[in-house]
Amino acid sequence: MSSLLGLSFIGFARGQSTAAPYRAINPATATALEPDFFPATAAEADKACILAAQATPTLAALSGKKKAAFLRDIATRIEAATPSLVARATQETGLPEARCQGEIGRTMGQLRLFADLVEKGDWIDARIETANPDRKPLPKPDHRSLLRPIGPVAVFCASNFPFAYSVAGGDTASAFAAGCPVIVMGHHAHIGTAEIMGGLIVEAVKANQLPEGTFSLLMGEGRVIGQQVAKHPALRAIGFTGSRVGGRALMDTAAARPTPIPVYAEMSSVNPVVLLEGALASRGDAIATGLLGSCTLGVGQFCTQPGLIVLTRSDAAESFINKLSALFTDCADGVMLTAGIHQAYQKGLTARAAQAGVKVVAQGKSSGQPNRAVATLFATDAKTFVADASLQEEIFGPSSLVIWCADQREVDAVLGALHGNLTATIHGTDAELAQHAALIARLEAIAGRVVVNGFPTGVEVSHAIVHGGPYPSLSDGRTTSVGSNAIYRFTRLVCFQNYPDAALPTELQNLNPLGLSRLVNGSRSNSAL
Amino acid sequence: MSSLLGLSFIGFARGQSTAAPYRAINPATATALEPDFFPATAAEADKACILAAQATPTLAALSGKKKAAFLRDIATRIEAATPSLVARATQETGLPEARCQGEIGRTMGQLRLFADLVEKGDWIDARIETANPDRKPLPKPDHRSLLRPIGPVAVFCASNFPFAYSVAGGDTASAFAAGCPVIVMGHHAHIGTAEIMGGLIVEAVKANQLPEGTFSLLMGEGRVIGQQVAKHPALRAIGFTGSRVGGRALMDTAAARPTPIPVYAEMSSVNPVVLLEGALASRGDAIATGLLGSCTLGVGQFCTQPGLIVLTRSDAAESFINKLSALFTDCADGVMLTAGIHQAYQKGLTARAAQAGVKVVAQGKSSGQPNRAVATLFATDAKTFVADASLQEEIFGPSSLVIWCADQREVDAVLGALHGNLTATIHGTDAELAQHAALIARLEAIAGRVVVNGFPTGVEVSHAIVHGGPYPSLSDGRTTSVGSNAIYRFTRLVCFQNYPDAALPTELQNLNPLGLSRLVNGSRSNSAL
Repeated sequence: MSSLLGLSFIGFARGQSTAAPYRAINPATATALEPDFFPATAAEADKACILAAQATPTLAALSGKKKAAFLRDIATRIEAATPSLVARATQETGLPEARCQGEIGRTMGQLRLFADLVEKGDWIDARIETANPDRKPLPKPDHRSLLRPIGPVAVFCASNFPFAYSVAGGDTASAFAAGCPVIVMGHHAHIGTAEIMGGLIVEAVKANQLPEGTFSLLMGEGRVIGQQVAKHPALRAIGFTGSRVGGRALMDTAAARPTPIPVYAEMSSVNPVVLLEGALASRGDAIATGLLGSCTLGVGQFCTQPGLIVLTRSDAAESFINKLSALFTDCADGVMLTAGIHQAYQKGLTARAAQAGVKVVAQGKSSGQPNRAVATLFATDAKTFVADASLQEEIFGPSSLVIWCADQREVDAVLGALHGNLTATIHGTDAELAQHAALIARLEAIAGRVVVNGFPTGVEVSHAIVHGGPYPSLSDGRTTSVGSNAIYRFTRLVCFQNYPDAALPTELQNLNPLGLSRLVNGSRSNSAL
Repeated sequence: MSSLLGLSFIGFARGQSTAAPYRAINPATATALEPDFFPATAAEADKACILAAQATPTLAALSGKKKAAFLRDIATRIEAATPSLVARATQETGLPEARCQGEIGRTMGQLRLFADLVEKGDWIDARIETANPDRKPLPKPDHRSLLRPIGPVAVFCASNFPFAYSVAGGDTASAFAAGCPVIVMGHHAHIGTAEIMGGLIVEAVKANQLPEGTFSLLMGEGRVIGQQVAKHPALRAIGFTGSRVGGRALMDTAAARPTPIPVYAEMSSVNPVVLLEGALASRGDAIATGLLGSCTLGVGQFCTQPGLIVLTRSDAAESFINKLSALFTDCADGVMLTAGIHQAYQKGLTARAAQAGVKVVAQGKSSGQPNRAVATLFATDAKTFVADASLQEEIFGPSSLVIWCADQREVDAVLGALHGNLTATIHGTDAELAQHAALIARLEAIAGRVVVNGFPTGVEVSHAIVHGGPYPSLSDGRTTSVGSNAIYRFTRLVCFQNYPDAALPTELQNLNPLGLSRLVNGSRSNSAL
């Protein structure tokens, strides 16, 4: 830990200690941690962007094999540094050691997934249309397309994932995989962890002989230095995980630039869970136990935390809510990531409890220690919910709102009023699911992932995962921020017309030297031309 | 022609004739054409959006086969109506009959390309990750993803393509193919043609028993009725082809919505052409002839018109420019699409001719008839060009600017100063191309399509075409507005977790009933599970 300098990485150089410093705080004890961290200066942020622009063509020309080696090297360095990463992160975040260990495993898994993807190479969507000089009325030219890196990407780290959505997290891994330089804004909630991780990436950049501008890590406030980076002419895209206010501010900045750029912000989601009567009658207790676990996992600080529970009045539903209430009441409090998050949680609970038509159904135990969140279950009725959009604002933490519906029409009204979400969940018997196809289609329309008879927390890192959904869950509801599809966020299409074979990117050359699956004149082929 | 009513199509109903009418103008004679056209009212635009929202789930559930039948039916109806479409379009646009015939052929080709694509079905990117209950530390759930339609799309027609980028053009075809309802804003430059085409689509919607809101066509000003539609809560995406000012206005509106939506605006491009000395020495005359053709094709009213010609001083370059100047001087004038476009062209020429450091090198013949554009070749030097961003503003029409560079360093400076373009072109001998790899990489960074030893006009409709490029050529430089890849603009990713097989979309069911190429646990497979 003594090796922490509290300074940004501007390419291979370190930032200066000129700005007013701040410290990381241990939220479990509300005490400040050594050492001082110095926000990046405006000149340093500018330098990071210019270095990234300079690195762009070299990274764009990098083979999939070389990108894979770089990503795997980062993973290997993380593996070796795991003890120091865990030691620092547990102090900074209050997260238990096992969680940090698990999240580091996931982070390495993400890096290796993207390494495999780019080494294989098919992801690049190589397409070839061969020339036909005899075509009437006009000859057909040879033209070939693939995906190219979009250019420098700024990554804003998440408070709630010190590893998987931070310095070497999914946004960084997918941007590197696409061939983009990355400028990371460290999160103050785990800035020491960020510095350790940043050092590992810089070592990997050097060891793989990549250009200096491949990676920079800026300490400091997203609202100041992050906005400056977002406006920088060299920047081409933004990845962000955080609050709706913060994400929307970046979206607005990016849209107002002389040259607008895409923003991939994962912002807020209340993850509705619809419970049908038959499911509650046949396995209500199991659903209650599973739901409690999903609501309170990680002290409710997951973007897929189920914040809305939608059901119709029935005996089974009443006894289910009694069971769920008992579980909430039994629940111990947990330390939140930062004092700020804890204060926001408290404020959210107080405001919701004061709303007309909303009541507190159950509340967990309080230990009285600092920054602890008490699990809280609210309830309201469908009419109140539909009439008040503020009831679908996320209260980040272990709190959920039960929405009692009189009948299926009210359930439809509730779903019709919902904004976009990362996930939507439904529990029903086979017969109920077959009967409620329209309801399931409604869930699909408002979410990026629909879960049947399961729980929304626990996001797979795979080829088929979608961690995205309509606004405001994502700024750009077409995409995903997790899984191999995330790479496409940082790419652009380019077509090469009438190129001499040797001047083409390897992926498009006649002999298909990489053995890719390519779309040749509309048919898939792994062969040479 | 007598069947034209001058009224919008609001689903299956017609608009009212309450607003102040306008007429289409024959630009060749500057005379107004029958009948009156009545702008859609605010209530009609609202109704079109609401109908589209209502149609959304039905269209989203449509099979690829049914979408293909609908698209092919539109093409068949266009084929049958070709004589009346051509008759009206030639009058409204001044475009020659052969061009209209050709563009109708292209439009039908686009519809049929998308029909083939969605009937085959592979485009949907079906991905399956099968469950593994024994995985450690956590079981792996079954989860499967594909692309879903984004929802109602507004399409703003282009002035310069009455068919291929208008009512039944590429944006509409790709949005329908994705499964989205479409609300078209007709372009006043060919509003009668739009009405005929709109009628054909409505007939196809009815014949294919699709919901009423599948398609609407609004007459009127994009700045008024179009802005209203762009702000409508039901809208999910916008396709636009037109001016940079118009496109940026829509981008700003879309970004400022409570729920921002993507805008695919194809706006402005000057399509630089770099000419290397060896190529000019060996086939300068042929390049001059080809370039003249590309500069003046369609009276220069193509988005890929080569507006910048970049070369270094040499004897070959001097004699090439002499040849090109002679060809420009010999060039007859041509009627432009509208009086407004002609006025803007005249204004652009006058302003450019008055700029310090710019001179008129050659100008074609003028017949003195109304709305005729005279081909005009300007020249400047690299330093003047780099210092003045206004010199890369598009002058829409048959005008190009020669940029004389002292050496290759100045060529690099010119390319470094360029904004985004749809295309970039280079002419060189094989030896020159091998030698200038860095220069070619620079072209790739600023354009969506790079052409070697050819000309940028003539955009293939294929799987490998990219008609897109960095801003301001496109609002969203990741995408293409032409070719099968255009369908992805109107989609969003959705993941289905732990679904009973029968509740899954057909594309994701175990038996693979459509025989799709799917990514199963990371490997491509056409088989059943």
